[in-house]
Amino acid sequence: MAKKKEKPIILITNDDGITAPGIRNLIEAVKDLGKVVVVAPDKPQSGMGHAITIGQPLRMHRVDLFGDTEAWQTTGTPVDCVKLAVDKVLHRKPDICLSGINHGANHSINVIYSGTMSAAMEASIESIPSIGFSLLDYSVEADFTASRFYIQKIVSSLLKQKMDKHLLLNVNIPAVPLELIKGIKICKQAYAKYKEEFDERKDPHGKNYYWLTGEFINFDKGTDTDVWALKNNYISMVPVQFDLTNYELKKQLEKKNLFK
Amino acid sequence: MAKKKEKPIILITNDDGITAPGIRNLIEAVKDLGKVVVVAPDKPQSGMGHAITIGQPLRMHRVDLFGDTEAWQTTGTPVDCVKLAVDKVLHRKPDICLSGINHGANHSINVIYSGTMSAAMEASIESIPSIGFSLLDYSVEADFTASRFYIQKIVSSLLKQKMDKHLLLNVNIPAVPLELIKGIKICKQAYAKYKEEFDERKDPHGKNYYWLTGEFINFDKGTDTDVWALKNNYISMVPVQFDLTNYELKKQLEKKNLFK
Repeated sequence: MAKKKEKPIILITNDDGITAPGIRNLIEAVKDLGKVVVVAPDKPQSGMGHAITIGQPLRMHRVDLFGDTEAWQTTGTPVDCVKLAVDKVLHRKPDICLSGINHGANHSINVIYSGTMSAAMEASIESIPSIGFSLLDYSVEADFTASRFYIQKIVSSLLKQKMDKHLLLNVNIPAVPLELIKGIKICKQAYAKYKEEFDERKDPHGKNYYWLTGEFINFDKGTDTDVWALKNNYISMVPVQFDLTNYELKKQLEKKNLFK
Repeated sequence: MAKKKEKPIILITNDDGITAPGIRNLIEAVKDLGKVVVVAPDKPQSGMGHAITIGQPLRMHRVDLFGDTEAWQTTGTPVDCVKLAVDKVLHRKPDICLSGINHGANHSINVIYSGTMSAAMEASIESIPSIGFSLLDYSVEADFTASRFYIQKIVSSLLKQKMDKHLLLNVNIPAVPLELIKGIKICKQAYAKYKEEFDERKDPHGKNYYWLTGEFINFDKGTDTDVWALKNNYISMVPVQFDLTNYELKKQLEKKNLFK
């Protein structure tokens, strides 16, 4: 008799912290597709980028938040969580790593600042296929119905494939009802940025302090970008890489021979 | 009479903090090439990746550490420092941004975790040509003689060129005396990673805590990588990009049409 195929192990993390509604909805979406294990930060870690914790030790505690699903909270960053999960919780690589569902957009340049995507990238570096999910709604009352539907579809489809071991996807979901979503569009990262302005204030002692604020500006007018897709009610899916070499500039510099 | 050309403005930051010897040596290396302004973290920020400070306000203070050179320390991350410098110190974009000299390697996959390189990347996103410098020596007594020589050479050469506004270079310098350095090699980022092992300990109350440790492993046997160059006493120069789209995987996914 053929050996029964083992359930895939699905590692889940996020950057909004283990109590955020987004991670609960991600678990709901995929819990029937494999054995889910959650290792997530014990507090919000938005904007942490690819930060890791070097100067301090980490704590990790088992928590009972998601019924039958094994879950751990850590004092670390999203990237720390992935490292801890592999080395100290699973003692092996999961079959896939899912990060999110982030409360708010991680399209375009946000991929670089995003703790959600950095956790996914860490897994990808470790040869674990990985996906970051974000919903374009910051509210704690955000409606995750459409997100759950499409995440289930994407993850179940990928688990049936032979995935590239470095597969890394940045998936953003528009904040519209399920019936308005036109489908999934494979995109490139839009060139957009924030025009920063610091809000300068004085404390009660007369000393200055600064709050980071910024206006999002999309410079990319293409219809092949994630920003375009989301504006047009598509789910955007950007394949991401961790080789940051700019090969075009490399060629140019080699040709110019500036530093000989 | 032709108008005298204004001195270029050189913004300097780092991730080891404003008191680290590396930043002092970077200032020394380039102070004759333009007007140098320093905006750097008030404490070590290694491994902060592209973290930004959203949940707390920032402080910034003028400091008198570098003679005639204007310098500010901030409570923020390296990326925060670049944003503050442009918006609140310079009130304009500098002509070039230099980050470092980092105490320790930022080659291969380290580019992703590195606060030094994230500061440089932030500048590049803002259309400021930018370079991160790292010396492969963690010691506070590291010898920066060769670093100063080559940094002066690289920056003066670039300031004479019309630079790409998104120019972003990751420069690592081997920890050997000047006369042993064979020159500068334009490279790609090696595929290497850390084999993580957490050192698990018990605190005096019997509870577990974990220190991140890891062994560096280079999987990339090519002679065109930064790791190879550094091993062979070259200075490695990797051109870096912030478009993380994996175009190869994008083509594959479009072809497979998995999610329709």
